[in-house]
Amino acid sequence: MFPEAGVLAPAVTAVFTAVLTEGPISRVALARRLGLSSGAVTKAARPLIEMGYLEELAATERTGPGAGRPASPLAIRADRELFVGVKITGDELIGVVCDLRAQVRTSAHRRLPVPDPDQVLTQLGELVDDLLDSHADYRPRTRRLGLAVSGDVDRTTGLVRYSPFLRWRDVPLRERAEKITGLTVTVENDVKALTTAEHWFGEGVGAESFALVTVGAGIGCGLVVGGRLVSGSHGVAGEIGHVGCDPNGPACHCGSRGCVEAIAGTGAIVRQAREATGRPELTLADAVALARAGDPPARAVFARAGDAIGSGIAAVANLVGPARIVVSGEGLSAYDLFEPHIRAGFQRQAFGAAADCPLSIRPLPFEEWARGAATVSIKALVDA
Amino acid sequence: MFPEAGVLAPAVTAVFTAVLTEGPISRVALARRLGLSSGAVTKAARPLIEMGYLEELAATERTGPGAGRPASPLAIRADRELFVGVKITGDELIGVVCDLRAQVRTSAHRRLPVPDPDQVLTQLGELVDDLLDSHADYRPRTRRLGLAVSGDVDRTTGLVRYSPFLRWRDVPLRERAEKITGLTVTVENDVKALTTAEHWFGEGVGAESFALVTVGAGIGCGLVVGGRLVSGSHGVAGEIGHVGCDPNGPACHCGSRGCVEAIAGTGAIVRQAREATGRPELTLADAVALARAGDPPARAVFARAGDAIGSGIAAVANLVGPARIVVSGEGLSAYDLFEPHIRAGFQRQAFGAAADCPLSIRPLPFEEWARGAATVSIKALVDA
Repeated sequence: MFPEAGVLAPAVTAVFTAVLTEGPISRVALARRLGLSSGAVTKAARPLIEMGYLEELAATERTGPGAGRPASPLAIRADRELFVGVKITGDELIGVVCDLRAQVRTSAHRRLPVPDPDQVLTQLGELVDDLLDSHADYRPRTRRLGLAVSGDVDRTTGLVRYSPFLRWRDVPLRERAEKITGLTVTVENDVKALTTAEHWFGEGVGAESFALVTVGAGIGCGLVVGGRLVSGSHGVAGEIGHVGCDPNGPACHCGSRGCVEAIAGTGAIVRQAREATGRPELTLADAVALARAGDPPARAVFARAGDAIGSGIAAVANLVGPARIVVSGEGLSAYDLFEPHIRAGFQRQAFGAAADCPLSIRPLPFEEWARGAATVSIKALVDA
Repeated sequence: MFPEAGVLAPAVTAVFTAVLTEGPISRVALARRLGLSSGAVTKAARPLIEMGYLEELAATERTGPGAGRPASPLAIRADRELFVGVKITGDELIGVVCDLRAQVRTSAHRRLPVPDPDQVLTQLGELVDDLLDSHADYRPRTRRLGLAVSGDVDRTTGLVRYSPFLRWRDVPLRERAEKITGLTVTVENDVKALTTAEHWFGEGVGAESFALVTVGAGIGCGLVVGGRLVSGSHGVAGEIGHVGCDPNGPACHCGSRGCVEAIAGTGAIVRQAREATGRPELTLADAVALARAGDPPARAVFARAGDAIGSGIAAVANLVGPARIVVSGEGLSAYDLFEPHIRAGFQRQAFGAAADCPLSIRPLPFEEWARGAATVSIKALVDA
């Protein structure tokens, strides 16, 4: 919640969110966009301007017949508050400082020898200190820290119920991170955090529905439907990695067979490349190098993986029909090997007009996960 | 829209919908449920009571310490208005008259020799007349007709863009049906209509998210997320029939291979049963009889089909996480042959807690499709 405000009226939240994600925007356009009267918009904007979150830009001169009063668009004052975001992986912490529009001001990493919760929290405290001490401006303007973790996360309580890559169970991450950093902490699943960032500040801006598919050790998916992140009534949603696409495919760690992740996750690719080449010591980098050099068995492994991802994405398009889909993730550093096969699998399996859904396929810049974590803490400003 | 009201305030729509689907319910419970003040509920209910859509039930006596004023729950007057619903299939019209709570008062059918639009509309006019003339009460109380058609339907304009089973393209069904019947007509895709009926009056009542899967000539799915029917940004949603589940499976009419529908649709089952038994004249009824008599090849065809449906349903649960899923449709007249395999395929492929999603698997009573069509015309009362 904003520091100076009590409980926010829904109109204040709506105006803030719309200006943040779609501004600068005039009061008239805001009123139309939100279905509010222009009086209600003016009233809702006032405390946000007083608190310094919004500002009025200089009026744009409008001339010509039919032009009304010059409009003074409302804009976010992006430097009004800063946010720290940290992604916790099994072997590394990645941290950023962002402004209100999730623009990265600085970033830093720390290697993690072991993802033991005690060690991670000590390192997290040091990383946050490093980030906030890197500029005299940062610490006084920062009150919030967003954390992103893969696995089953209870955002409401900040409890990490289960994170397979970290081997964590029931770690009260928010509570412990608040104690160490003194900041207000938000914890979210990493794919959901990244989806929120893309929905608010990336290709998903303004989309009623939107999907982000992440390709890496796991294959994940964040879904926005009706403008809201889908979280699943039973705590599971977006598990595109476990859509079954080949009953005779490789065994999956989930107990089934031929899941997208069992064919296209990083581990699966290495395993299949070792089998295909007969070289049991092959690494992912070796497999990528072999495939780029034109080795047919290695190329076939990436082709099959891309096809499985495309087929899984088509399931998302056929079932939910998002306005657009972004495919990203650290696995897409081998983008060139995947892309044509993702598109081919998608086109083959997308039904009718579902094939019209635009697909952006691109690698994920290094700090994006941490920026996603920061975005969740920006969102917490208005969610509280 | 209600005949006597102008544009309805959102609170009136919310109160009407909540009492219709969850009533009888006290004003206090309504206020809590809708996040309205009890004054706002009283104000919103007043015109609905005056128009005869709602009534106050006798106060239930509350005794004991802490009991407040006796509560007078609000209830729907189900016989205030009647609705006709008709499902149009390739060879038959199925019609019902329903009350406001979608309870069927009477039903009737007409065989269709050819699904030519002119003939269908003539027959439709006669069927509606038969239905409304079957009781002196019906015609004076009926203003609305809902039509359900498989395929790509534009609900806003009432245009049937493409219906493969009817072989219709761009038929302005609403306009033509209004001319012939004199009623206010709503046109909707049949699976969506059935989903609305189940969400408002069936197992989906009160669910934030919900899925209905229909098994028959096609395999369809209606999805409710965040309380609203998902329609897909590109006009496609719920196409569970074209989730790919076996790259080596049979060719599908969509151009791909191993789609759920290519394995489990009625036509696919007949085709596979003919191949498996070497009897090219086999009908669906023959295949069902053979399988029920224990014939292993025929049983294997239903087992594989059930498994493919279960795997497709798991994709819905893994991606969207509905609170519950109902599986129904005329194909489930062979319920006994499908059910264990649907459950096994679902359990194998559902990821983690997604397997907790309750699955109801049941045959679809004859008039349910038509009742779905009527429900959409009930919904149009408040959607207008």
